[in-house]
Amino acid sequence: MARPLALTSGEPAGIGPDITLAAWLRRSELDLPPFYLLGDRAALAERARTLGLAVEFADVGPDEAASAFSRALPVVATGKAATARPGAPDDTSAAAALASIRQAVADVRSGRAAAVVTNPIAKNVLYRAGFRHPGHTEFLAELAASGGATPQPVMMLWSPALAVVPVTIHVSVREALAQLSTDLIVSTARIVVADMTAHFGLKAPRLAIAGLNPHAGEDGTLGMEDIEIIAPAVEILRRDGVDARGPLPPDTMFHAAARKTYDCAICPLHDQALIPIKTVAFEDAVNVTLGLPFIRTSPDHGTAFDIAGTGKANPSSLVAALRLAARMASSS
Amino acid sequence: MARPLALTSGEPAGIGPDITLAAWLRRSELDLPPFYLLGDRAALAERARTLGLAVEFADVGPDEAASAFSRALPVVATGKAATARPGAPDDTSAAAALASIRQAVADVRSGRAAAVVTNPIAKNVLYRAGFRHPGHTEFLAELAASGGATPQPVMMLWSPALAVVPVTIHVSVREALAQLSTDLIVSTARIVVADMTAHFGLKAPRLAIAGLNPHAGEDGTLGMEDIEIIAPAVEILRRDGVDARGPLPPDTMFHAAARKTYDCAICPLHDQALIPIKTVAFEDAVNVTLGLPFIRTSPDHGTAFDIAGTGKANPSSLVAALRLAARMASSS
Repeated sequence: MARPLALTSGEPAGIGPDITLAAWLRRSELDLPPFYLLGDRAALAERARTLGLAVEFADVGPDEAASAFSRALPVVATGKAATARPGAPDDTSAAAALASIRQAVADVRSGRAAAVVTNPIAKNVLYRAGFRHPGHTEFLAELAASGGATPQPVMMLWSPALAVVPVTIHVSVREALAQLSTDLIVSTARIVVADMTAHFGLKAPRLAIAGLNPHAGEDGTLGMEDIEIIAPAVEILRRDGVDARGPLPPDTMFHAAARKTYDCAICPLHDQALIPIKTVAFEDAVNVTLGLPFIRTSPDHGTAFDIAGTGKANPSSLVAALRLAARMASSS
Repeated sequence: MARPLALTSGEPAGIGPDITLAAWLRRSELDLPPFYLLGDRAALAERARTLGLAVEFADVGPDEAASAFSRALPVVATGKAATARPGAPDDTSAAAALASIRQAVADVRSGRAAAVVTNPIAKNVLYRAGFRHPGHTEFLAELAASGGATPQPVMMLWSPALAVVPVTIHVSVREALAQLSTDLIVSTARIVVADMTAHFGLKAPRLAIAGLNPHAGEDGTLGMEDIEIIAPAVEILRRDGVDARGPLPPDTMFHAAARKTYDCAICPLHDQALIPIKTVAFEDAVNVTLGLPFIRTSPDHGTAFDIAGTGKANPSSLVAALRLAARMASSS
């Protein structure tokens, strides 16, 4: 039997529990891969009652999760109670969310889980509890390091229609201009190539590397970065045998015909990457963290406190994240 | 009979002649509004021969164009011969292209044409001939000024699915950061509101104003421009009674459901605006210049020298530009 996916609870007051319950209830219809939730079963049962959902739970260890999955939602206890009501994080939220992440990473590193799928966390709640990482991904990278060098995590947004990777992520445009370098583009692209080769069944991933400036700088008349920073990165990658093209004019590389010519678009700025994928695949884009020593996917949305516990949360992105994690694990 | 549209020849060696001929041949099928081409009839006839197209021409003045349109392609002579072969601009190209633009503006300003539609020009060809404007649009703005103050031209990309306006246009991202100001956003938005009210049949155009930084700056943690520059612009517009919202996170404002909530998206950076529209409407986006004292549209592509004279040029964007110009003129 396939190893199960380890699904974190995320912020217990957010929509993580809602979409987890909704996804599990549709497990047969959607032919979902087996997963288990790392969290507080009592809190999950309470959310199911709030939502009026009839869900069986199975208190299991990771090794029993796959066989239990068809009849009950497997829950692996973290030992941290989560008492927050929907939409209202409380003092138990941060510890519960972090314990779930830590245990998921431990399970995947020990081989008991095939991959980690994370429900959304609330960074502000964690910050108030003393969390000192910029976000989820950086925390995972540190857990992955376990004493060694911290890996460079690379954020990919994936959908069947388009996969994109921003080179600079959660920084201002001004700071992104300062961070952007040939080395950063090359190291990011190498991680994309390695992970898409290892986990996406691609022998030679085709990379489309976007320019920074309008029209990719129009031969230097609209900025020099495309010539001085991006073109040399493409050149280095090509010399290494990577199927990379660019710098491409950012506005003409995302229509349907253009998308067929590459496997991943790598973009200097966050929104050059996220605008097109959220335009064409708003409901089912998946956040994938590349560059870690394990597979990690995540739904591409936040905690949505305003609709937690109401039944309005859409599990599409979590379903897509579970499926992609299983596909990546099976082609590893 | 409706006044005709004045269509410029654009660069004679580009695909302007090809798409003009192709559009006119489909005039009945597509129910196109009457237009006339300002150019050299002999050059057009030669291109028709190259393409193997049977096209009747009518040498007319603007006032006779609409009645001739159904039986022949009306050509209004500019007096400038264009001898360039497809794909190879020559010494006659720049003067022919510029005369066509000047005469089209004169016709629309004298009321003989309903609007100006421009075929693509080759800026490098014009620069070599001493042209000193950054581009087509700035030249039109100067022609529009005729001695008075030069208007602020505003570039809109329009399609049935989405209309976008970039606040900064053909400058590097670094220069765009320097140019971006509350005043520039407000003056741009006011022109959008005025022109969409006058020509798009909208009583109160709804504007969605994008943030500059990822997540619109996330309360200042990802850059201060969204708080210091963009939010005050939205505030000023709202005080003036404009239906404006923002700064919105740029990545989540362009999916199908979001697009229904506004009439035009106004974006700080060129590619924040052009990426989404070219992703969803690559073939039929139209370039519209707002802020001029006349209506001007244009296909959203260049001269495509590599396919001029081959029959491969797609007239979709020109057709969309002709239609939108007629629609804008009729609702004026």
